Amino acid sequence: MHPTSPIPDVVRDVSGERLAAAAGIGAGIPVLAFDVGGTDIKSALFDADGTAVGLRRTPTPTGGADSPARLIARLQELADELRAQHPHLAPAAVGLIVPGIVDAEAGVGVFSSNLGWRDAPLRALAEDAFDLPVAFDHDVRTAAWAEHVIGGARAYQDAVVLIIGTGIAGTLLFDGRPYTAGGYAGEIGHSPIGDWPCPCGARGCLEAIASAGAIARRYAEASGRTPDGAKEVIALAASGDEIAARVWDEALDALALSAAQLTAVIAPEAIVIGGGLSRAGGALFDELHARLVDRLSFHRIPALVPAELLGNAGILGSALIARALVEGER
Amino acid sequence: MHPTSPIPDVVRDVSGERLAAAAGIGAGIPVLAFDVGGTDIKSALFDADGTAVGLRRTPTPTGGADSPARLIARLQELADELRAQHPHLAPAAVGLIVPGIVDAEAGVGVFSSNLGWRDAPLRALAEDAFDLPVAFDHDVRTAAWAEHVIGGARAYQDAVVLIIGTGIAGTLLFDGRPYTAGGYAGEIGHSPIGDWPCPCGARGCLEAIASAGAIARRYAEASGRTPDGAKEVIALAASGDEIAARVWDEALDALALSAAQLTAVIAPEAIVIGGGLSRAGGALFDELHARLVDRLSFHRIPALVPAELLGNAGILGSALIARALVEGER
Repeated sequence: MHPTSPIPDVVRDVSGERLAAAAGIGAGIPVLAFDVGGTDIKSALFDADGTAVGLRRTPTPTGGADSPARLIARLQELADELRAQHPHLAPAAVGLIVPGIVDAEAGVGVFSSNLGWRDAPLRALAEDAFDLPVAFDHDVRTAAWAEHVIGGARAYQDAVVLIIGTGIAGTLLFDGRPYTAGGYAGEIGHSPIGDWPCPCGARGCLEAIASAGAIARRYAEASGRTPDGAKEVIALAASGDEIAARVWDEALDALALSAAQLTAVIAPEAIVIGGGLSRAGGALFDELHARLVDRLSFHRIPALVPAELLGNAGILGSALIARALVEGER
Repeated sequence: MHPTSPIPDVVRDVSGERLAAAAGIGAGIPVLAFDVGGTDIKSALFDADGTAVGLRRTPTPTGGADSPARLIARLQELADELRAQHPHLAPAAVGLIVPGIVDAEAGVGVFSSNLGWRDAPLRALAEDAFDLPVAFDHDVRTAAWAEHVIGGARAYQDAVVLIIGTGIAGTLLFDGRPYTAGGYAGEIGHSPIGDWPCPCGARGCLEAIASAGAIARRYAEASGRTPDGAKEVIALAASGDEIAARVWDEALDALALSAAQLTAVIAPEAIVIGGGLSRAGGALFDELHARLVDRLSFHRIPALVPAELLGNAGILGSALIARALVEGER
C-alpha cells in the first residue's frame, strides 16, 4: 500500500555494511533510530551534534506469526552492538518507523503484508525492550516530515511530498505536520486519473503509469527489451527512441494531471518530489512545471522542488521523532 | 471563481420579501448576520434562542469604485430597519460573509468581479459602521462550516462539502475547521479530470461537465431543446431519453472520479453534497456511491450525505461566526 522507493546511491551498500554518513539532524539529545523496511532495517545512533554514528543496514527478520517479537529482539541486538561500539553515547529516546498501515497514536502496526503482522503493539514492545521512551510512526510519513524539518520541504508549511520509485507514496503536510486521516490520506499513487488496470484492484491509478517501476515495465512491454530502470527510458526518450518518448510523455502527462488536481483541491505551496525518478532533474521538474501551468488557469501554481534527504529521509526522520518526543517539539 | 448555487425553494422569495424561517442556531448571544451575494443580500437578527427574526433578501448595490462604502452603507440601513422592528433585540456582534477571494484573517475582500472590489477592508469598514465586533469570512466556506456545526456534516470532523449548482464550490473541513490554503484550497469544481474546455481557461474541469448548469447546457446543446434545469434532464434520463441518459451518465462518472480522487488523497469521512443537484436524491447519492466503490479498492469509502441547510447555510453560518467571535468557540 505504501510502496518503497529504490535505494538511492547514498545508501546502496549491501546488508550489514556501514552506509555513507547521513546528513545531520542538528544539535540535541542523543537518540537511537530505526527505519524498518520490508527487506532491511537501517539503524544508527545520533550524537549530541546530530550526526549519525554506526549507521548501517541489515536484513529484516522474515515474517511469521511471531514476527513482531522477532523484530524487536533483532532491534535489541542491533542496539547492543551500537552501544558497545559507541559506549560514550547514551541515547535518551528511540525512534522506530515501520511500513504498512500504522496507528501512530496507539503505537500499533495495524497491518503489514511484507512483515507479516496484524495489530502488533510495536511501541509497547520496544519500550519494554529498551526501557526508553519510543517514538513510533509510519515510515513514509516520517520521511516526509524529515523533508519538512531539514530537507527540501523546509521552506513550506503546506506541502505534498511525493516519493516516486517502484511505486508512488504521498504525504500531505498541513501547517508543517503530516495529515493522516487515520492513515488513509496521501494515497496519491492510488488516486485514479484514467482507466487502465492497477494491481491494487482499482482503475487508472497514477502509480500504474507514472512510477519509475511502471515506466520501466511499460517500456519493456512495448519494446520487448528490459531497460535499466526508468532512468534508461528517460535517456532513450531524449535520444529519440519513439517508444521511450511515448512512455515518458504519458508518465509526465499523468504526473501533471495529478499535480493539477492537488493544486486545485489542496493548493500546496510546494510539491516536493523524491525517490528514484527525482534524479531525472530538469527532464522531470521543468517538463512537469510547463505541463502543470498549461493545464490550469487562475490556480496558485505550487513550487516543484526536489527532495533532499534521499534514502536517508527515513532514518533521519526516525531520529527526529525520537528527539521531538523528549523535547516536545512535534 | 466560487460559483453560487441556484436559490433553493426555502428562500425563493423575491427581493425585499421576508423569507421562510431559517433553522435555528441554538441558544447564545443575539447577533446580526449578513450574507452578501452577487445579486442580493440576506440579512437577519438572531435572538437568544438562535431563531432568525426579520430574515429577508434585498438587492446588492451595484458595483463600482465606491462599492465597498456603498455596501456598508446599505448594510447599516438594513440593520437600522431590523433594529427598529425588533427593539428588544440588542446584537452583540455582526457576521458578514462575502463571495470572491477573501482574506478572512486580514478582514479584506481581496477580489470580487461581481461586486467590483479589490482589496476592500470590509471588516474594518463594518466595525466602524456598527461599533460592534465583526466576524468576516468567505460565503461558501462559512456555509460549509455551518453544515459542520448544525447541518449534514455535523457527525464528521474531516469532510468535503460540495455545493453543486450553477457551478461547483468545494470546502475542505479538517478537524472540523475549513482548510483554506490562503483561499486557494477547495477548487474541486476547477480540478481537471479530462480534456474538455472550461470557461476558466483550464481544461477538463469537473464543473464544466457535472454541475447542474453544465448538465442543462450539455443537454440543450445535444438535443436542441432547453430543459427546465438539470432536474428535468435527470427525469428525462429516468424515463428513457437517450441524450439525457448520456449527459447524466457522464456527469455521474465525472463526479465519481472526482470523489475517488478526494477519497484517495485526503480521505474524508464524508462528502456532503448540497446545491440544486443534491435534490436529485437517490438518483445522485446511490449512483455515486456505486460508481465510487467500483473505482477504488483498499481505500476508505466516505459516506455520501446530503447537505441540510440548503440556501440558508450562508446566513446561518454568518450568525454562527458572529457568535463564535464573541464566545471564542471557533
